[in-house]
Amino acid sequence: MLDDLRHLMGPAGVLEGADAARYGLDWAGVDQGAPMAVLRPQNTGEVSAILRTANQIGVAVVPMGGNTGLTQATAAGGAWVLSLERMNKVLDVSPEGRIAVVEAGAILSHIHEAAEAEGLIFPLFFGARESARIGGALSTNAGGSNVLRYGNTRDLCLGLEVVLPTGEVANLMSALHKDNSGYNLKHLMIGAEGTLGVITKAVLKLFPRPLAHATAMVGMQSIEDALRLLHALQEATGGAVEAFEYMPGTYMEAHARFAPDARPAFDRTYPVNILVELGSAAPRDAAPGADGGMALGGVLEAILADFLEAGAVHDALIAQTEAQRRDIWTRREDLSDVTLIRDPIVHNDVAVPLHQMGALLARISALLAEHDPGAVDISVAHLGDGNLHFACWPSTHDASVHDRIYRAVEEAVIALGGSFSAEHGIGLEKRSSMARYKDPGALAAMRAIKAALDPNGILNPGKVLPD
Amino acid sequence: MLDDLRHLMGPAGVLEGADAARYGLDWAGVDQGAPMAVLRPQNTGEVSAILRTANQIGVAVVPMGGNTGLTQATAAGGAWVLSLERMNKVLDVSPEGRIAVVEAGAILSHIHEAAEAEGLIFPLFFGARESARIGGALSTNAGGSNVLRYGNTRDLCLGLEVVLPTGEVANLMSALHKDNSGYNLKHLMIGAEGTLGVITKAVLKLFPRPLAHATAMVGMQSIEDALRLLHALQEATGGAVEAFEYMPGTYMEAHARFAPDARPAFDRTYPVNILVELGSAAPRDAAPGADGGMALGGVLEAILADFLEAGAVHDALIAQTEAQRRDIWTRREDLSDVTLIRDPIVHNDVAVPLHQMGALLARISALLAEHDPGAVDISVAHLGDGNLHFACWPSTHDASVHDRIYRAVEEAVIALGGSFSAEHGIGLEKRSSMARYKDPGALAAMRAIKAALDPNGILNPGKVLPD
Repeated sequence: MLDDLRHLMGPAGVLEGADAARYGLDWAGVDQGAPMAVLRPQNTGEVSAILRTANQIGVAVVPMGGNTGLTQATAAGGAWVLSLERMNKVLDVSPEGRIAVVEAGAILSHIHEAAEAEGLIFPLFFGARESARIGGALSTNAGGSNVLRYGNTRDLCLGLEVVLPTGEVANLMSALHKDNSGYNLKHLMIGAEGTLGVITKAVLKLFPRPLAHATAMVGMQSIEDALRLLHALQEATGGAVEAFEYMPGTYMEAHARFAPDARPAFDRTYPVNILVELGSAAPRDAAPGADGGMALGGVLEAILADFLEAGAVHDALIAQTEAQRRDIWTRREDLSDVTLIRDPIVHNDVAVPLHQMGALLARISALLAEHDPGAVDISVAHLGDGNLHFACWPSTHDASVHDRIYRAVEEAVIALGGSFSAEHGIGLEKRSSMARYKDPGALAAMRAIKAALDPNGILNPGKVLPD
Repeated sequence: MLDDLRHLMGPAGVLEGADAARYGLDWAGVDQGAPMAVLRPQNTGEVSAILRTANQIGVAVVPMGGNTGLTQATAAGGAWVLSLERMNKVLDVSPEGRIAVVEAGAILSHIHEAAEAEGLIFPLFFGARESARIGGALSTNAGGSNVLRYGNTRDLCLGLEVVLPTGEVANLMSALHKDNSGYNLKHLMIGAEGTLGVITKAVLKLFPRPLAHATAMVGMQSIEDALRLLHALQEATGGAVEAFEYMPGTYMEAHARFAPDARPAFDRTYPVNILVELGSAAPRDAAPGADGGMALGGVLEAILADFLEAGAVHDALIAQTEAQRRDIWTRREDLSDVTLIRDPIVHNDVAVPLHQMGALLARISALLAEHDPGAVDISVAHLGDGNLHFACWPSTHDASVHDRIYRAVEEAVIALGGSFSAEHGIGLEKRSSMARYKDPGALAAMRAIKAALDPNGILNPGKVLPD
């Protein structure tokens, strides 16, 4: 069978042995198990041929994009990896239609560049954008730092091409903003982590490039004050807040150890540090005083001054240059690397309703005091989305303590009406959480859909759904 | 079996005979066939009992909300109608969380009122809002006049409760903006027209009430100029255009016959008439000169003046009072009633990419000249969404001419990269279009999903999917 596929795709299309083994490592280099082979199709027809073959002989197939996922959704021990890395083209950018048509293996930062060349943006930004591929971002329904303004990946996608587990191709490549023609398969495939079909192409929404940004780091005392700042900025600007990211003082200190040459944001350490960015596509916001209106930077400065005076903000640094803006962002985007400087780590990607974030952080503080008083909590949040990337360095290697912390955080999230998975998905890592917390009726419907579309269970088996 | 259900739900819960017959008429009074019975549950448990019973004995069940749909999706001859009309409560409005929790039978205008009582809006607006129920709007993924700014119904919904065809309840009542925990069943149920499950509750997103509106009727010569006006307004305001509706001169004349007492917008008839509305949640846009900025009305006036001077706008009427604003809107929202003043009518709800709308209207003009030169085209469009409500009064009762017109319009839409169903759904009416134009791989996946969730085919059988 592999010989047939090698004949179809050429020698570079099929990797085995040592060449295949590196696809068994995750982004951090942790071994997930060696794949039996790695298949590297160059077009949709080849993807279809691979799935048809696998479906006939009953081999498991694990789709893989940039392999930057965080929940082991691409673990492929003993399976065929279907890598989209050779289907990596930005096929078309239409300024008129404000869309990009891309292959699933297109690297996120390449899509950014192609959009920017036409004066537009594709507003999906996260740390791994230099290696993440759009098919993986779609399959995970990735979030990132601009969800507050532009939505999750699913909100940025108008159409898909998908190869079903049987090898049949479903063409859902609509570029329309309204299309009610049958069940919404696009939204079913997005976030399904490659268990229902292999995304091969996508139509993406592009947006006008903001004509102006105003970016600041803000040192504060409490999450409640931070949320008041968010609401004040949203009201004053009519919703122009593009990012509102929370970093605790412990993270700022850890980052200083990770990047000792980086200039610190503040002289002192504050418990709550907010990266805020405003953006506007309206020319009257771009240039101060152009038509007598107040530019974004002025609005940000005025509101921060009010909060400083009221004692809710302790310090604030507004970026004056693009280099300063990059510095502010880099500190936030170094998160994944910062978490690696100590070992072990317990982490979890969770969401709660916005107004419950303060309560969640208080509960986490209490549960750490109970289970491991020496643990260091460096949890960072997409605060504007109610999305916490819980992360702590426990003081012990005792796995039972780690488990207790993990479970206690999860229980706190559920008790506050939250979700045990915000933007990283389920993969292998959270199947037990699915079993514990997901509604049984919803799980039954998901299992029925999986069995209907993948009757032989060949596509990314064992992921997402608990046994 | 009906006796068991009557015992469970009380005498008002089960209607038969003449009481049931009126549920066989559509909104325009056209008979769709008499239902065997009408079941009127008062809670989710009763919905579950109905479906469990029907699934056991193999009776077809047709869910019905306000019965304002336009594609015969609630035709129920010989079936049980499951009416949500007694599950009509707005259960909760949370200003803090900016959500409303509602039962599926809640009337759209009641949800509007409940939101407005808290200073918020639920921005789903269309003509039938006094009788349409949210469950039907969700099942149809209804559009309306504010999609440009706020999205379709699916974009306005955070969570659902759904009873599956087997009677099992799936609780998807998330109020979170990020929740990646398994397949997105919410988006699968939205737009499925009650064929995959019965929506019983929903969590809806609310938005700040715009502090200012600027509304105008604009008389123009061409669609291309109208799109230039749209883009100019979007750029000047950073995307504050809430509605951008097209009405042809023929529609304006028909409306004058329908409502002879209404004051006409203009002294003359223009080929292209645009209803434009801007809205802003930012206080600096609300009051002219409050902080030196230019208020929305000023922006609209200035840009219209530019277009007038350039000859692209011939006349414009900016609403000076709320009553004038209502007059402008009423003319547009009378559409359904205006189409009834002549008979027969050929109509179709279609979408094309925005920049193809001019080409579509030109093709329609040509195909009418070919098939029925005496036909009067009164097509209205949600122009900002690329969504045309094609409607024409043919000069003949010859059904074969009507069919040729319908098919020719559809072919023109498909040739321009459009969809044969934009916002009204498929129902019975467009099943043949599904068979003609929908991708075979997509249809196969839809059929597999339907069979998996509704193995006995009891829920709204024969709708959406072609045989």
